[in-house]
Amino acid sequence: MAHYDPSSEQQKSKSSPQQDVFEVTPQLIDEISHALQENDSEQLDYLLEPLHSADVADVFEQLSGNERVELVDYYGAEMDPEVLMELEDSALDQVIHKMDDQHVVDAISQMESDDAVGILEDIDEAERDRIIAAMPSEERLVVEEAFSYPEDSAGRMVQKNVITVPGSWTVGHVIKTLRADEDLPSEFYEIFVVDPLHHPIGTVSLSRLIRAEDKTHVSEIMDSDPKVVPASKDQEEVAYMFRQYDLTSMGVVDESGRLMGMITVDDVVDVINEEAQEDIMRMAGIQETDITETIFEASRNRIVWLLVNLLTAILASMVIAIFDGTIQQMVALAILMPIVASMGGNAGTQTMTVAVRALATRDLTSSNVRRVIGKEFSISLLIGLVMAVIIGVLTSLYFSNVALGGVIAVAMVINMVCAGLSGILVPVGLDKMNIDPALASSIFVTTITDVIGFYAFLGLASITLL
Amino acid sequence: MAHYDPSSEQQKSKSSPQQDVFEVTPQLIDEISHALQENDSEQLDYLLEPLHSADVADVFEQLSGNERVELVDYYGAEMDPEVLMELEDSALDQVIHKMDDQHVVDAISQMESDDAVGILEDIDEAERDRIIAAMPSEERLVVEEAFSYPEDSAGRMVQKNVITVPGSWTVGHVIKTLRADEDLPSEFYEIFVVDPLHHPIGTVSLSRLIRAEDKTHVSEIMDSDPKVVPASKDQEEVAYMFRQYDLTSMGVVDESGRLMGMITVDDVVDVINEEAQEDIMRMAGIQETDITETIFEASRNRIVWLLVNLLTAILASMVIAIFDGTIQQMVALAILMPIVASMGGNAGTQTMTVAVRALATRDLTSSNVRRVIGKEFSISLLIGLVMAVIIGVLTSLYFSNVALGGVIAVAMVINMVCAGLSGILVPVGLDKMNIDPALASSIFVTTITDVIGFYAFLGLASITLL
Repeated sequence: MAHYDPSSEQQKSKSSPQQDVFEVTPQLIDEISHALQENDSEQLDYLLEPLHSADVADVFEQLSGNERVELVDYYGAEMDPEVLMELEDSALDQVIHKMDDQHVVDAISQMESDDAVGILEDIDEAERDRIIAAMPSEERLVVEEAFSYPEDSAGRMVQKNVITVPGSWTVGHVIKTLRADEDLPSEFYEIFVVDPLHHPIGTVSLSRLIRAEDKTHVSEIMDSDPKVVPASKDQEEVAYMFRQYDLTSMGVVDESGRLMGMITVDDVVDVINEEAQEDIMRMAGIQETDITETIFEASRNRIVWLLVNLLTAILASMVIAIFDGTIQQMVALAILMPIVASMGGNAGTQTMTVAVRALATRDLTSSNVRRVIGKEFSISLLIGLVMAVIIGVLTSLYFSNVALGGVIAVAMVINMVCAGLSGILVPVGLDKMNIDPALASSIFVTTITDVIGFYAFLGLASITLL
Repeated sequence: MAHYDPSSEQQKSKSSPQQDVFEVTPQLIDEISHALQENDSEQLDYLLEPLHSADVADVFEQLSGNERVELVDYYGAEMDPEVLMELEDSALDQVIHKMDDQHVVDAISQMESDDAVGILEDIDEAERDRIIAAMPSEERLVVEEAFSYPEDSAGRMVQKNVITVPGSWTVGHVIKTLRADEDLPSEFYEIFVVDPLHHPIGTVSLSRLIRAEDKTHVSEIMDSDPKVVPASKDQEEVAYMFRQYDLTSMGVVDESGRLMGMITVDDVVDVINEEAQEDIMRMAGIQETDITETIFEASRNRIVWLLVNLLTAILASMVIAIFDGTIQQMVALAILMPIVASMGGNAGTQTMTVAVRALATRDLTSSNVRRVIGKEFSISLLIGLVMAVIIGVLTSLYFSNVALGGVIAVAMVINMVCAGLSGILVPVGLDKMNIDPALASSIFVTTITDVIGFYAFLGLASITLL
């Protein structure tokens, strides 16, 4: 049977410069699909055993829904907990749902607390409660404590199993203790020095510990200003600290400043990825999503945004309707009007994207916001003038109508400047109101550029041309 | 004077749950600006000394261009190399430009090789060549080797200083050697086991090393299938491996498979951030950018995209122009036509964003691309039908014209399905042709949805309504 065994990795050929870094190739997926169809468990053993658990998770994600279920059956009780840890939300949900409850409980109880919580967070609520209730009491209490902190907070990411020592210990004593301890975290990069109340007073990285003399006291070599984070802080702030201070692990403290555990960089890498992903998706109007979600889930995730957008499109239409008489007299206006609106929309989106990211990475703050607004005004005026000349000349020539060229040129400058200003002011304003600028900015910016684009162009035309 | 001294960090009050994680507050920036104006170097010492070098870098970025120059003067020869390492491109360029060449050379020669290369990559080419030429020969050769690899490759990220041991050594001997070695890397998480030709044959994490008995041979406890990356691989693949296998450091090998050095997770965190940032920016049509760039640089970075967009907007106008007679007979068409195009554009952008990200994270591959295309077709048909009913009914009622409502409903379904299909097919096709889908997809998708939106709506109207 196919329980994942690290030693089997040795069967694989050594990495060479020619080798591709991606282990899960489309060909491998085809072979696995085929073996699943044929129910050929020997072939499955052969194909799956050499894979790292993270790659097995990728196999699950790449297979179709039915094949995924068959693969769960193939693994049965031997499903490697590490594979579950690496699965994305929708696929995880399906796999856990198909597994025996008892197998899930066993797998989750074996994990470090942060991994167990990570999985429980992603599955169906009823299932989660059932699984937590069936866990051994020690593990259950740890999980329940984590769930007492808000979603996406440091408290949910804590690995409880950390190494703490008093500052008075010598390096030799620490190393002896580590060697005797059976229940160490699977991987750690520093040890925490705590006072008698379990407040963190320092950290010692392993690379420093290993180089120190046996007789040295831990307090002499510790970094006595360790970065720690309160459990209630958002994961975005945790990610910020890891990036800013190049950390590999960081202590997490409770309300009274006692060390609860640590967060390690591998989880933070996932958070950084997740947060950037979330911003990209939100700017395009998509709620949380992944490639394994169903058609119905995906449609529901996208339709809200499209409905809001329908409203703003109708609003823009109402502006056009004001000038229906003007358009009837001069159809060229109907032909040209989308140009002004579309250019404004694109320019606004550019500025908005820069602003949203600068807010997310803390590059745009109240210290420099005025300077940045002034800069965006200048940029949009400069770009607007360039575009106005181009479109003005083209229009004058094509329609043999210099006045029409002048109107579209002026409308272009007005709309580009409004686009630039709304592109910066909308995200900054939303951020001030504690609304996620990635989520809501583009609706406002495109509405503004559509309405102003149509209004400026058709309004100027109706005054000057007819 | 204000050279950064780690021990001075101890002056700071201990972190407490109430404290904000962000050290560089707008108030601090105001105080520093003020002190710079007053030339009050005592106050500057007081404000800047307690800061971590990464926070000093943030101070540089938040200040105006003139203040930045004054702060460079204040630091003079005492500028902490770590601050340079943390600065973003434009600000770094300005700071280095303002610093004495000799100070730059001294600072860069002190750094680990990956950090030195990271800085040299970001500055003006003439300045870079001058600085490299002035470096001590040993450091110069290392830097020149890194520059022989392409931009954004693993070879540029290598830290040459790694710990390598033969497999026959005992743990006790390794630790003794580490203690005796003066020139160790500042931070490391694992040691590399190499054969006589310097090929990596294993790794031992420090947490495993420290727990092993002194007499154990390194070869007994090493992970004998270490993940390594060839120096020529792109940083995106490096980031993929760190994420996939939860690594903290990874060996880099040259063409003959010899260990050149390692890449550490702190640099990879920056890469992950950078790659996600790049995708967001490219989708909005912005070339590399940051908040400290000048107005002229920013305008140039954005105008190319807007010019391409002007072409596609003109193309859409030409479609409208085909139907100018139809519009003249029925102005309602001019009022309604942006709705169809705008909804298609938004739906297409949603699908495209999901596809671009799924390609970037390797969730969308040739194994599941057909299934995903089928899914996107179903999603867009479902959403298109919902939107068609809504806009059809509204149009019928508002214009008291059921036929017009029918036309816009049918046009909406056609355009939404085309939007969904182009949203997935365009990025996948570009990716197949090795063109970055984040960069070019949205131009094609919006052109398709504009052209088809106008054509379907006005074409259907001209056939059925007149």
